[in-house]
Amino acid sequence: MASLPSVSYSITVRLEIDGRASAVSSLTNAVERVGGAVTALDVNSSDRERLRIDVTCAARDTTHAQAIVESLDAIEGVTVHKVSDRTFLMHLGGKIEMRSKVPLRNRDELSMAYTPGVARVCSAIAANPDDARRLTIKRNTVAVVTDGSAVLGLGNIGPEASLPVMEGKAALFKRFADIDAWPIALDTQDTDEIVRAVQLIAPGFGGINLEDISAPRCFEVEARLRELLDIPVFHDDQHGTAIVVLAALKNALRVVGKEIDTVRIAMSGAGAAGTAILKLLLHAGAKDVVVCDIRGAVHRGRDDLDPNLEWIAAHTNPSGYVGDLAGAVRGADVFIGVSAPNVLSGGDVAEMNEDAIIFALANPEPEIDPEIAALHAAVVATGRSDYPNQINNVLVFPGFFRGLLDAQSHRVTSDMMLAAADALASVVTAEELSPHYIIPSVFHHGLSQRVAEAVREVALRDGHAGVREA
Amino acid sequence: MASLPSVSYSITVRLEIDGRASAVSSLTNAVERVGGAVTALDVNSSDRERLRIDVTCAARDTTHAQAIVESLDAIEGVTVHKVSDRTFLMHLGGKIEMRSKVPLRNRDELSMAYTPGVARVCSAIAANPDDARRLTIKRNTVAVVTDGSAVLGLGNIGPEASLPVMEGKAALFKRFADIDAWPIALDTQDTDEIVRAVQLIAPGFGGINLEDISAPRCFEVEARLRELLDIPVFHDDQHGTAIVVLAALKNALRVVGKEIDTVRIAMSGAGAAGTAILKLLLHAGAKDVVVCDIRGAVHRGRDDLDPNLEWIAAHTNPSGYVGDLAGAVRGADVFIGVSAPNVLSGGDVAEMNEDAIIFALANPEPEIDPEIAALHAAVVATGRSDYPNQINNVLVFPGFFRGLLDAQSHRVTSDMMLAAADALASVVTAEELSPHYIIPSVFHHGLSQRVAEAVREVALRDGHAGVREA
Repeated sequence: MASLPSVSYSITVRLEIDGRASAVSSLTNAVERVGGAVTALDVNSSDRERLRIDVTCAARDTTHAQAIVESLDAIEGVTVHKVSDRTFLMHLGGKIEMRSKVPLRNRDELSMAYTPGVARVCSAIAANPDDARRLTIKRNTVAVVTDGSAVLGLGNIGPEASLPVMEGKAALFKRFADIDAWPIALDTQDTDEIVRAVQLIAPGFGGINLEDISAPRCFEVEARLRELLDIPVFHDDQHGTAIVVLAALKNALRVVGKEIDTVRIAMSGAGAAGTAILKLLLHAGAKDVVVCDIRGAVHRGRDDLDPNLEWIAAHTNPSGYVGDLAGAVRGADVFIGVSAPNVLSGGDVAEMNEDAIIFALANPEPEIDPEIAALHAAVVATGRSDYPNQINNVLVFPGFFRGLLDAQSHRVTSDMMLAAADALASVVTAEELSPHYIIPSVFHHGLSQRVAEAVREVALRDGHAGVREA
Repeated sequence: MASLPSVSYSITVRLEIDGRASAVSSLTNAVERVGGAVTALDVNSSDRERLRIDVTCAARDTTHAQAIVESLDAIEGVTVHKVSDRTFLMHLGGKIEMRSKVPLRNRDELSMAYTPGVARVCSAIAANPDDARRLTIKRNTVAVVTDGSAVLGLGNIGPEASLPVMEGKAALFKRFADIDAWPIALDTQDTDEIVRAVQLIAPGFGGINLEDISAPRCFEVEARLRELLDIPVFHDDQHGTAIVVLAALKNALRVVGKEIDTVRIAMSGAGAAGTAILKLLLHAGAKDVVVCDIRGAVHRGRDDLDPNLEWIAAHTNPSGYVGDLAGAVRGADVFIGVSAPNVLSGGDVAEMNEDAIIFALANPEPEIDPEIAALHAAVVATGRSDYPNQINNVLVFPGFFRGLLDAQSHRVTSDMMLAAADALASVVTAEELSPHYIIPSVFHHGLSQRVAEAVREVALRDGHAGVREA
């Protein structure tokens, strides 16, 4: 699979070139010759002899960007001045800000928003704590909490370096569900301390979104916080992923005409995401799942099982399969990978059951090249935005929290996750459904509202909500 | 001192009245008869016989608001429908929000602000941690941290009920200094836990503003955090107050032609604010200060001294005065009260030195009625907005943090506080200076910038800054 130039790696090269007729086309040619793509060309100034031009182009990576700059610099008559990186420019000074919703133009407004007027509002909440949901930001806020231990594919880069991801997450919360999220990057990777810190900051938030915390720590952090707090706690890397996978799987099964309770599912990866996907699949009715990790299929006979793998062994692999991933995949209807690049071959897929479904979600390099998988499988999905059927958490977490906050829910439950997956799957109509369209775009209109409504209904139905049914 | 109707207690009464000519004036009369003030009168609909009107009026308090409604209701032909409270309306849903500064309109923008583009920014910070100040919100964010133990004059109302104050504070940070502050209301009042929680959340913030934490806990929390963190920690109730008091005192002394190192100062109150004021006065050159608490003057011979009072006894009261506040005030040039209502009488002030200065800062009821104090003193200041010379923390904390953030300061020092006080005092020009104008309005143009510049210069001069002098 060829890696394509991407705007996520986009540079702007400011250069001067002599004013001959072929000047501009020589620039475009120079970029394309080394595999780059010109996305914008702005002439900033020109006199009879020299043009000053900003050339913006998409590159694959740092080395490629360097090659593009060198290719431009090598043109006769060109002087390269400054190279800037659009992604870095976008991040200068941070991506989010705090805004006041009330005017503070004069003393009267000050005296209502702050002292002395604010005292009456405080007293009202002290007398009736539920009023915090009505009269403060608690109504609409989510803490995006990380310890920086498992950030994207970058691993343990610590709290400061994780901030750009947390800010991006907060921006997405606002963009897709009008939620006010704020990053909380913790200066500890100790489970007890993470739990206690989140518990201590909880009063100002209506929900907690755990983010990029490594396994197995994330399981305990989440489980303990759910016990301790009366606001919902959601680990997006686990549950967000699980919900989107289930939604996509439901639609993929519709495409091939199979049912979740009769298909055989082989999974690769038993980490945070893999475990959450497994649990939600079982909750949704899946009966025949084999999970493989780096040592092959998880089964009761293995002597290296931690508590998480023990749980998996007890709830999967009904036939007691012992062997590697290739063997587990043989004859299976569905492959779901949340593991590592290139663990599956085209030959492996060819030996799956007819109308196989492949979800190769390792990022940025999937378990199998999706183009090779598509030679043998009926439906292929990845985590990448440059192929059809992108499994992307952004499809779920904003709407999911919108529903939780609207219900003033105290809990997150598996039934809410099922409902969210159903709502997400149902956005793709029977007419639209195809092997290349099992999951909508994150920009699909009304998507978050659909998910939110489903979650809110379950919260109300099952008695987890702080609000009453209207 | 009469308590006046205030917009901080403002109600809107929706009512219907018959359409006779005197209808509207009968409403205004009814409000004024019971001491209210009509601030707006909106006719919503009318037909030949009935008018529907929203009457907005300022009241003193809950009882008074009730009296106004009853007075309106008693008018013949009036039907009162709904009474709403403008301050509560302003607080509905909270006063602040999170906003994205980057556009997320399409997949390209998403891929720069979030995955995959964001990964390069994270990697850059992991390689060079100082870049967090350039590429994340850390550059411009302050955590407004409270445990809810000493909120305004309301006391220990807990974290949720303190949120409206913290939100107001965050809104003021933005309004006056373009700082992104976020409330962190802690679910603990244990000193160790407060310290640890703030330490754990510090990576995402460029500064910590401690707020409404009771004494003596606040002293230890602040001192320990200053040791532990490499970002500045500021307890506004202490240092904000102290800076404004010092600025106002400098100008009051200019009015009466006295010097800070020769005046005798009597203080009432040895709590968080009193102690901070005292320390800054001493740092500014004051030599003769007597501090009184509820048991009278603090002196070395008292057997009830906690560590804080012991420090005060060791650094004040050079003549070893033993006695009550009235005695301490006798012959003094300056009285500064941060204690309780009505502890000082007109007679006490009459026995002070010529051209006495009275800062009666207890809120909402000062140590002495400012009108009575003004009969005997040359300059009078209070914490109230309905008298001249309001000592208001909003004059300082936004600009102070602006300066700290601009310098990327790692510390808060007494010299920064002195510089801030000087900058604030200097906003009042020699021509403007008068007994009724020793301190500018919070809306004075350019005020925060002046304070910020002074703080930034000291941070750079004294080697506390992360940035270099430009």
